[in-house]
Amino acid sequence: MALMTAAQYIESLRKLNTKVYMFGERIENWVDHPMIRPSINCVAMTYALAQDPQYAELMTVKSHLTGKTINRFANIHQSAEDLKNKVKMQRLLGQKTASCFQRCVGMDAFNAVYSTTFEIDEKYGTKYHENFKQFLEMVQEEDLTVDGAMTDPKGDRSKAPHGQEDPDLFVRIKERRADGIVVRGAKCHQTGSVNSHWHIVMPTMAMGPDDKDYAVSFACPSDADGLFMIYGRQSCDTRKLEDGADIDLGNRKFGGQEALVVFDDVFIPNEYIFMEGEYDFAGMLVERFAGFHRQSYGGCKVGVGDVVIGAAALAAEYNGVEKASAVKDKLIEMTHLNETLYSCGMACSCEGKPTKCGSYMIDLLLANVCKQNVTRFPYEIVRLAEDVAGGLMVTMPSQKDFDAETVVGKNGETIGDFCNKFFVGNGSCSTEDRMRVMRFLENICLGSAAVGYRTESMHGAGSPQAQRVMIARQGDLQGKKELAKRISGIK
Amino acid sequence: MALMTAAQYIESLRKLNTKVYMFGERIENWVDHPMIRPSINCVAMTYALAQDPQYAELMTVKSHLTGKTINRFANIHQSAEDLKNKVKMQRLLGQKTASCFQRCVGMDAFNAVYSTTFEIDEKYGTKYHENFKQFLEMVQEEDLTVDGAMTDPKGDRSKAPHGQEDPDLFVRIKERRADGIVVRGAKCHQTGSVNSHWHIVMPTMAMGPDDKDYAVSFACPSDADGLFMIYGRQSCDTRKLEDGADIDLGNRKFGGQEALVVFDDVFIPNEYIFMEGEYDFAGMLVERFAGFHRQSYGGCKVGVGDVVIGAAALAAEYNGVEKASAVKDKLIEMTHLNETLYSCGMACSCEGKPTKCGSYMIDLLLANVCKQNVTRFPYEIVRLAEDVAGGLMVTMPSQKDFDAETVVGKNGETIGDFCNKFFVGNGSCSTEDRMRVMRFLENICLGSAAVGYRTESMHGAGSPQAQRVMIARQGDLQGKKELAKRISGIK
Amino acid sequence: MALMTAAQYIESLRKLNTKVYMFGERIENWVDHPMIRPSINCVAMTYALAQDPQYAELMTVKSHLTGKTINRFANIHQSAEDLKNKVKMQRLLGQKTASCFQRCVGMDAFNAVYSTTFEIDEKYGTKYHENFKQFLEMVQEEDLTVDGAMTDPKGDRSKAPHGQEDPDLFVRIKERRADGIVVRGAKCHQTGSVNSHWHIVMPTMAMGPDDKDYAVSFACPSDADGLFMIYGRQSCDTRKLEDGADIDLGNRKFGGQEALVVFDDVFIPNEYIFMEGEYDFAGMLVERFAGFHRQSYGGCKVGVGDVVIGAAALAAEYNGVEKASAVKDKLIEMTHLNETLYSCGMACSCEGKPTKCGSYMIDLLLANVCKQNVTRFPYEIVRLAEDVAGGLMVTMPSQKDFDAETVVGKNGETIGDFCNKFFVGNGSCSTEDRMRVMRFLENICLGSAAVGYRTESMHGAGSPQAQRVMIARQGDLQGKKELAKRISGIK
Amino acid sequence: MALMTAAQYIESLRKLNTKVYMFGERIENWVDHPMIRPSINCVAMTYALAQDPQYAELMTVKSHLTGKTINRFANIHQSAEDLKNKVKMQRLLGQKTASCFQRCVGMDAFNAVYSTTFEIDEKYGTKYHENFKQFLEMVQEEDLTVDGAMTDPKGDRSKAPHGQEDPDLFVRIKERRADGIVVRGAKCHQTGSVNSHWHIVMPTMAMGPDDKDYAVSFACPSDADGLFMIYGRQSCDTRKLEDGADIDLGNRKFGGQEALVVFDDVFIPNEYIFMEGEYDFAGMLVERFAGFHRQSYGGCKVGVGDVVIGAAALAAEYNGVEKASAVKDKLIEMTHLNETLYSCGMACSCEGKPTKCGSYMIDLLLANVCKQNVTRFPYEIVRLAEDVAGGLMVTMPSQKDFDAETVVGKNGETIGDFCNKFFVGNGSCSTEDRMRVMRFLENICLGSAAVGYRTESMHGAGSPQAQRVMIARQGDLQGKKELAKRISGIK
Repeated sequence: MALMTAAQYIESLRKLNTKVYMFGERIENWVDHPMIRPSINCVAMTYALAQDPQYAELMTVKSHLTGKTINRFANIHQSAEDLKNKVKMQRLLGQKTASCFQRCVGMDAFNAVYSTTFEIDEKYGTKYHENFKQFLEMVQEEDLTVDGAMTDPKGDRSKAPHGQEDPDLFVRIKERRADGIVVRGAKCHQTGSVNSHWHIVMPTMAMGPDDKDYAVSFACPSDADGLFMIYGRQSCDTRKLEDGADIDLGNRKFGGQEALVVFDDVFIPNEYIFMEGEYDFAGMLVERFAGFHRQSYGGCKVGVGDVVIGAAALAAEYNGVEKASAVKDKLIEMTHLNETLYSCGMACSCEGKPTKCGSYMIDLLLANVCKQNVTRFPYEIVRLAEDVAGGLMVTMPSQKDFDAETVVGKNGETIGDFCNKFFVGNGSCSTEDRMRVMRFLENICLGSAAVGYRTESMHGAGSPQAQRVMIARQGDLQGKKELAKRISGIK
Repeated sequence: MALMTAAQYIESLRKLNTKVYMFGERIENWVDHPMIRPSINCVAMTYALAQDPQYAELMTVKSHLTGKTINRFANIHQSAEDLKNKVKMQRLLGQKTASCFQRCVGMDAFNAVYSTTFEIDEKYGTKYHENFKQFLEMVQEEDLTVDGAMTDPKGDRSKAPHGQEDPDLFVRIKERRADGIVVRGAKCHQTGSVNSHWHIVMPTMAMGPDDKDYAVSFACPSDADGLFMIYGRQSCDTRKLEDGADIDLGNRKFGGQEALVVFDDVFIPNEYIFMEGEYDFAGMLVERFAGFHRQSYGGCKVGVGDVVIGAAALAAEYNGVEKASAVKDKLIEMTHLNETLYSCGMACSCEGKPTKCGSYMIDLLLANVCKQNVTRFPYEIVRLAEDVAGGLMVTMPSQKDFDAETVVGKNGETIGDFCNKFFVGNGSCSTEDRMRVMRFLENICLGSAAVGYRTESMHGAGSPQAQRVMIARQGDLQGKKELAKRISGIK
Repeated sequence: MALMTAAQYIESLRKLNTKVYMFGERIENWVDHPMIRPSINCVAMTYALAQDPQYAELMTVKSHLTGKTINRFANIHQSAEDLKNKVKMQRLLGQKTASCFQRCVGMDAFNAVYSTTFEIDEKYGTKYHENFKQFLEMVQEEDLTVDGAMTDPKGDRSKAPHGQEDPDLFVRIKERRADGIVVRGAKCHQTGSVNSHWHIVMPTMAMGPDDKDYAVSFACPSDADGLFMIYGRQSCDTRKLEDGADIDLGNRKFGGQEALVVFDDVFIPNEYIFMEGEYDFAGMLVERFAGFHRQSYGGCKVGVGDVVIGAAALAAEYNGVEKASAVKDKLIEMTHLNETLYSCGMACSCEGKPTKCGSYMIDLLLANVCKQNVTRFPYEIVRLAEDVAGGLMVTMPSQKDFDAETVVGKNGETIGDFCNKFFVGNGSCSTEDRMRVMRFLENICLGSAAVGYRTESMHGAGSPQAQRVMIARQGDLQGKKELAKRISGIK
Repeated sequence: MALMTAAQYIESLRKLNTKVYMFGERIENWVDHPMIRPSINCVAMTYALAQDPQYAELMTVKSHLTGKTINRFANIHQSAEDLKNKVKMQRLLGQKTASCFQRCVGMDAFNAVYSTTFEIDEKYGTKYHENFKQFLEMVQEEDLTVDGAMTDPKGDRSKAPHGQEDPDLFVRIKERRADGIVVRGAKCHQTGSVNSHWHIVMPTMAMGPDDKDYAVSFACPSDADGLFMIYGRQSCDTRKLEDGADIDLGNRKFGGQEALVVFDDVFIPNEYIFMEGEYDFAGMLVERFAGFHRQSYGGCKVGVGDVVIGAAALAAEYNGVEKASAVKDKLIEMTHLNETLYSCGMACSCEGKPTKCGSYMIDLLLANVCKQNVTRFPYEIVRLAEDVAGGLMVTMPSQKDFDAETVVGKNGETIGDFCNKFFVGNGSCSTEDRMRVMRFLENICLGSAAVGYRTESMHGAGSPQAQRVMIARQGDLQGKKELAKRISGIK
């Protein structure tokens, strides 16, 4: 079948027996749950655009395994051009959803596992690369969404996995059998885990010999026995449960999602295992996954930024101040920052190089520089958006007030009449439109979308300090010292 | 009576027939409404601390009108020392509530109206200053909370009040009678309006002769006939309505509040009028109120900042990373930024000078510099707090999940068991405590408290560009050019 | 001959009868003048590296006109790969000289004039493109260095060229003859003008019909009759004249250069004219030259930044503090900022597209974003370098003091003894080496090299506001508004 | 005599037998040396303004020791008002000289030594406070300028004073005699050492018992036997030696100065000793001196900043762009940053508290916050000044070119004619005036004055990291954690 439609994707989720808990209870029909559905809609957009002739070239690609047309999210990058197109696809999806669309973690996991397994096999004569290729072929053929799961709970951060009081604080091999392994533990902050068909689990850090049981990577279906998820709260999450919620949501259709994914003694058959104890490759897998994922942020967050800039410009227009030089200058600054992020996404892509197995890898230094900027600029963009929008975005009455027919005025005016009277803009838009753009900005600056645009920009793909460590390691300080010695005449 | 207790204050609100609307309906018992009560608790704290011997010296002062002990929030500043103590009091309250405590707008309005009416009377032989002193004596004697209402809806910002299509978009005198005036219009973004006993209305900008009907200032009780309020939504507001909401709120007890205050033909008796058509003084009143209020932010937001820094430090401790040099450095930077704000609050206070009537005014240039920094640094403090805290603050399951006894594990573990197992910190705290500090940070960074700590820092007391205009006006560029000419030898 | 050696280049300059004035006098042997020679050495490096097998691939390219191997500085970019290699070559030269190496303006002029003349001819049937190809073939064949001259004096900036009191404040056609034109005026701030063989003159802004005489572009040899240059002062310039100057110079060998180039009725034969009155193409020529030159800064300044970072690291090592976490973090930040600039240089290159004539043009939006960052980050890099280095870089005695044998101590110590005793580092280096790196930093932060690394980063290729205007124009705010409307449900 | 005139001060220097070395030679008439004289003029200004009735109130004060009128630079601060006035005096002098005026280090040393000796005596029964009071009375009576000398060479920074290979790398007691001590070592980066009458030496860091010989503080005349100075180079220093140097200097009259002060076995009589081995007070003395001096920067650099802002505004006016909104906004930003620094200077002053001996001390936390901002904002002010000024400030020909009468034009024009023709501004000023303001900016941004305005802002009174350590120590993180616990409900 190769390419699913958005509707087929959503139907495919219904067929899974995924176990999702929220507010202390199991959610049976989680596909239609108002708090979960927006994140499903985001992933559905990755299917919809691939069917849209306008975007097909960017959204699809020929599989290097089978030659069939596949969604780019299931692609192994074959060139620097592929790496650049990945970023462009992500910017497009950010523009269409103004959200985290979640399917990137799987794509980045594919590319990290693909090249790393090749090198493990090369050293140890294992068959992980073959396993993975089989798995990937299924993913491509069935057009599956896959979660890439890395972050463990970690417990006491000053201790290694094997040194924790509770051995389960990092995902581990609890038992080895002839036909597979039993794994136990959990992965935190899992973006897009609930609406994925499968999960790829990877270790969360470089490891030593004592952590052998923790050096494990595998794939596992979402409804495997023993696997379940506990849904995370987001700012303004329950606003989505309000009757007739629309305008007050800011972004009614799309949203992100995080969950705790628990592996309560899950059996993994041998064919889905991609690393089993080769602790000396844990670091490489982490570095590559993180590298790809840090590149991703130079696309997806830029797309969201485009919408934020547009919304701020719209708010300025509706407020009647878009011609003010201070306002124009702030919109320029937002654009400048956003395009700087994009430049970083492009640069680490166009400087991509082949790995041993032939797949392409981003430039690691520049990918870390990219992500480091992402931990800063969206915050400034949001600050400027709040500046341009004005205070109304956080003080406006509810949609219900705007709609209310309760009479409160001396001349028979309703609450809605007063709201519409006093929150009128400069005449170029309806009060409702002004309300809509204000609520969009509230949502992206402080509401549920801020989780994706702000905090995820900070901590997704590794916290800022992780990038600084990599920048130090990749920055070739010694070489730069030599340059300085030569110029200043030091022997 | 002079000083009310916190309980008396809350009871006094019940006695008022204040009309509050929310979600399209009138809220009868608004004093106990879970979304409103936290903001009442904040104001109550201004009463409670005045009764606390530890803080009495800072919180109370002798009235210059009556010599009686009054709450400092009702004081007319008599010295630069008073101005400094105002800021210190505000920092204290910020520390105790981690919220906007709302009573400052009234205090700042008192001081602006007091000195401006003196100068209007001096020019026009009016009696506004006497009116205001009478009113203030009542406020001091009954220890009232008063809203200072300035911001009009404004409609098309490119047009003056009298040029708007709808004449009500700025509060105006609709009718002049022998015994008073009838006013019509609304004030937006009114912080602390619902839980005030009275409102002082002031014009929102400098005005010309055609805007005479809009050059109006007066006091009016909260339950005046024709006056009602429509409550504004905040990020995460309805989380406060959830059953047993505690931990997930982050700051269970305290919060801020904004509302649209509508004047639907409200009659104002002569004795409560402080300006009626003297348009040439509208600018002075605005500039003074804004000046005092820009000073205020150098105290209140610093107090909130103290709590944010503490919470980030606590999160780092619970995560087991507080000794990491990068973490320590971020806490230093947060402290540095916060104390820079405080320095600005102190500086414009200690450089305060007497007005014509003897009351003290802050240094206008430095107060604007203070507020301009407030539009930047809290955003950076929040960014650093999110950095230090880690992603957990936006991905953590609900309190209900932590409490849930639903069995989901193969060994009989409940959802709560898994949550407590996997979200354990470094052992120095309970998982609940870790959750509490994460939720506090979520609330201040993205939740309802972010409205006060971020967006209000941006737009309260005037948007950034308003301060820049004042800095340009007060910066004496001509004098600086002369300095440069002398040094560089230009005649 | 195609490729000159460095020595040949220097000899070729001696053969020119270039007229250079400095301190009010003509400099006869300007090639060996200590204040001018360092800038010649920089250009010579562009020749030397092209001869170095290690760099030949980057430094040379096949001419698309003749198929011969030429210096990349004379290349018309034929692909996005070419654009990227241009930036890489510039970074390399920045690393080797820690200076502005000046030959880029010519290269950027070639590419702008090449593509623009094609489009002028297309519209007007003129022969400029052919003229230019002939000229370029000579440049490639003889491996010439060419100045690209754009900035006019401008006089009263509120007036157009034709509106100035003095008609010469923009370069203009004073007389039209059958065989050519006579031009008059001057170009300011001309980097690398003295050490160029030829100059390409271009208009400095978009023009209207009244400015026809100012819409002129042509090539002209450095020693044309009527052409002369007045050399600009730089910070610390005369330190280069001191006897035995070495260490105190910081960068003894390399440096930049600016001059006023005066056209005192210079005759230009028809074959060297590339625009003569087609004012509607003046804007295109400016935009393209500026675009290419803004890209350039994402290479050259990055190379200089590499040396600055290396020098700061070296200073830290010699001070014995390189292990301090604060120092390491500052070096990371410097690297991060520098690589962000490089990312912008790469991004606008890899997104390059063909012009009508087939030559490649950078992405204009991203090139402007690149340069805008260059107006900020080198300043911060310098600030951090001064932080890491310590105050010694500006308080250290002269080399003469270190060398002095004058006895001043009670035990017969000389001045040099005391200098060497007290300015000793941590033992890993000689005091001289420590002095050398400190002087390098002084020179790049405040000395003659700061002109190139700081002020030129600000104003070269257009001042910051020029980029902001382009970012506004290229940012597609309307498209972004549409994205926001769709997401927030505005029809 | 109490107050000297500027002329008397300069004469008093001639009477001293101060030994100054520069470029390897002794400078006999250093008072009139063109490289040294500008720094003497700065100190002279502290005398001149004290005689000027317009400034007398700010510049003078009654001695708390004798009741006589003294220069405020010799004052022991008796109140928070005194602390504020100190900062205001410093801002004034910065405005009048656009330089470091050097006399502050002595004033800050007086106040640190005065209060610390009181506490040493209290603990150890020593007589240092009395010694110091006698010394100070002389200083006040004779209106002397005194250098406060703290920074030792330090050698290997990872080792304590007693652990250095060379024992002289920190000033030490080499010999103890009945009538005094013999000291040996040097102090680096000594601002205003050459033009001081006396020096107060203080230890450079907190010390332990093994460093007893290094825990020494004393006073010593500039021409003591064994004391001499080696003058430090500054950017553009020798430009001051050029014939007829005026315009090219930017600031012809004023400048700063640093030197290495060598103590080559200098004998100090008992009466001038203020600490001799009480190592446990070394830290207090350092902290207080550094604290006072960090406050100072909130005054002096603000005054210089005023001139920089004025010069940038003037440059904009002469360029004809002062009405452009981008230019106005940059001038506002410069003003905002400068006044933020001033706010910090004011805040740590108005929050001053008495020490044990009754003299007033600044608020240590806020003084460190002040200085930390000084390590950032002047750099940004300079960057904005370079932006506003345009590139001309670093590319302009020399004054000699402007004056040159050498004929070079076809119509008999001289070099000067061409310079004046092409560097004309918008008509509101002479070309010379435009040149003057550009050169002033060159000097403050990159030239000799940049040493004082930039690098000294970074490292004077302690490098940035020193302030961060103090901010961490003074920031009461524990108290802030308690605030966060209370609000978030953690027991």
